[in-house]
Amino acid sequence: MKAHNFSAGPCILPQGVLKQASDAVLNFDNLGLSLIEISHRSKNFVAVVEKTEALIKELMGIPAGYSVLFLQGGASLEFVMVAMNLMKEEGGKAAYMDTGTWANKAIKEAKRFGEVTVVGNSSDKNYNYIPKGFSIPGGMDYFHCTSNNTIYGTQVKNFVKPANCLNVCDMSSDIMSRTVNVADFDLIYAGAQKNMGPAGATVVIVKDEILGETGRDLPSYLNYQTHIDKDSMFNTPPVFAIYVMMLTMQWLKDNGGISWVEGVNQQKADLLYTEIDRNPLFKGTAEVEDRSNMNACFLLTNEALKEPFDALWKAAGVSGINGHRSVGGYRASMYNALPLESVAVLVNAMQELEKNHR
Amino acid sequence: MKAHNFSAGPCILPQGVLKQASDAVLNFDNLGLSLIEISHRSKNFVAVVEKTEALIKELMGIPAGYSVLFLQGGASLEFVMVAMNLMKEEGGKAAYMDTGTWANKAIKEAKRFGEVTVVGNSSDKNYNYIPKGFSIPGGMDYFHCTSNNTIYGTQVKNFVKPANCLNVCDMSSDIMSRTVNVADFDLIYAGAQKNMGPAGATVVIVKDEILGETGRDLPSYLNYQTHIDKDSMFNTPPVFAIYVMMLTMQWLKDNGGISWVEGVNQQKADLLYTEIDRNPLFKGTAEVEDRSNMNACFLLTNEALKEPFDALWKAAGVSGINGHRSVGGYRASMYNALPLESVAVLVNAMQELEKNHR
Repeated sequence: MKAHNFSAGPCILPQGVLKQASDAVLNFDNLGLSLIEISHRSKNFVAVVEKTEALIKELMGIPAGYSVLFLQGGASLEFVMVAMNLMKEEGGKAAYMDTGTWANKAIKEAKRFGEVTVVGNSSDKNYNYIPKGFSIPGGMDYFHCTSNNTIYGTQVKNFVKPANCLNVCDMSSDIMSRTVNVADFDLIYAGAQKNMGPAGATVVIVKDEILGETGRDLPSYLNYQTHIDKDSMFNTPPVFAIYVMMLTMQWLKDNGGISWVEGVNQQKADLLYTEIDRNPLFKGTAEVEDRSNMNACFLLTNEALKEPFDALWKAAGVSGINGHRSVGGYRASMYNALPLESVAVLVNAMQELEKNHR
Repeated sequence: MKAHNFSAGPCILPQGVLKQASDAVLNFDNLGLSLIEISHRSKNFVAVVEKTEALIKELMGIPAGYSVLFLQGGASLEFVMVAMNLMKEEGGKAAYMDTGTWANKAIKEAKRFGEVTVVGNSSDKNYNYIPKGFSIPGGMDYFHCTSNNTIYGTQVKNFVKPANCLNVCDMSSDIMSRTVNVADFDLIYAGAQKNMGPAGATVVIVKDEILGETGRDLPSYLNYQTHIDKDSMFNTPPVFAIYVMMLTMQWLKDNGGISWVEGVNQQKADLLYTEIDRNPLFKGTAEVEDRSNMNACFLLTNEALKEPFDALWKAAGVSGINGHRSVGGYRASMYNALPLESVAVLVNAMQELEKNHR
């Protein structure tokens, strides 16, 4: 039976990428050696890092003056590094949008380094919408938002462009899924393990000129400038994760790039949300205008149907759609590599449930 | 032709481990899904983390009261975390042994957090020996040493046991290669990419009771206690690297554990150093008593023979033995997974050179 992997992350990757990654673990570049047993400074692996960087720059249309870095520690370490690198040592201030669990974790770490003002907050409705219409006070070092909230199934559709401070975005769960104008941001970061590759690498896209302005003495690893100066080779990078990222970016390019995948992602989201809205046995949890194209969260209107519904989708080969404990119900994550066909299989299970229980 | 991989790291891994890792990238645990596209909180992957931890505890004989953590950022981030977690905020002091490049990097980061006293220093002879006979002043928060110095081919044979402060060791390049008494240490850390697995994971073995004593407010990711509390699942861990580590630890256990590999490593080192000392065309760079069983550094006595020697070992399938630029010559890294046969092939090339140029 075909697997339909809706896992929230680490998540589905293209089958061809998995095949190539598997092969490279045995024999990389026809060297007769594994990808994971050669020096990260060998010309073959340096070429991997360079190609991955070039593909990301090309696919996202990253302007000159920005660096693309491959780090470790995930968004969780970026919560710390962003504040350390961008908040002034004396009187540092930053504005954060609070859209749920991950935004809160970012806020918690930033507070250790300066004053945090929450400028938009959707906690009043369990984060089922994206705050809008707020203003950002003067004197901020930067504004921070989370572009997509996996747990609540919300996504920023129109990014705020702060007029008088830097613009920072955690794009962990929707980077490369849609067109964004990188020039509107000063720093973008993302754990790679959704649309870009496997767990173990963090991607940071940073405008070079914004760094070095805080007055802080930064530990080497935690200073973005260190990694810019060393082309992400300050220390041994996460070799396998970067290689799989390269393959995934090549897959994206070969298929038509971000505009192509944005279209497919829209088709998948339309198919599923249309069914959620049509089928009386289901209801969505997020405000319609803020619904995420990556993670669709929905509930049964009758909890008694949980057992038969779970049996139906499991029988169809669907996995990974249990909702996060803070929202309940179901969460279907539809990252780039998930085929439209998988969404059709899930929708079919929803329609079967309706047929059996109308 | 068979490959003989003497790479200094990332480095050779057991062939059976590579085969299993390659298979799991396609189909993990017969789930019909790749290891790298499932949730890190799935029961199958949680079992991997638990088993890896259990194997490390068993193989190293780690006593109760210690935690084994899987982190990211390599030894380079540990240089920072050790100081942040163990140096008191008010008047923090630590003693470091200076045995070369990596020790220096550790010292550089620690100085940001307190006063560093260098208590043993072999820079006078380009770090070709391990300092001995030094004393550690009172009032130190901890003593730090690097157990094996890849660049210079030196290795601590008798660990210093400080009487009045914590004992911290960077074992990145010889962990699991020989028996150590973990109870003699308070914190051991290692980038996994030598004897334990591929690049992308860092292993920390820490005595629980030493933490939380500095008075510092630590960012969550940089606080060892965070990772203890969350069983190394505070954030998405480096899934693939941990899995390959589990396979490598299982390979080690199946073959007889650390006492077995210590014997093999001794045989390999004896074979190569005996030839270096016997063959008039070569000389070792490290003091004999401090020679590393992991990395043997040696020079040609006649530089004019570089071209013919390089041709000989390359023709034999040997790779990765060019010395580090700060020492020159050759460096043969003989990590756990390197077979004795590969060392024999290298020794044979050295003897061929002698035959051709005596």
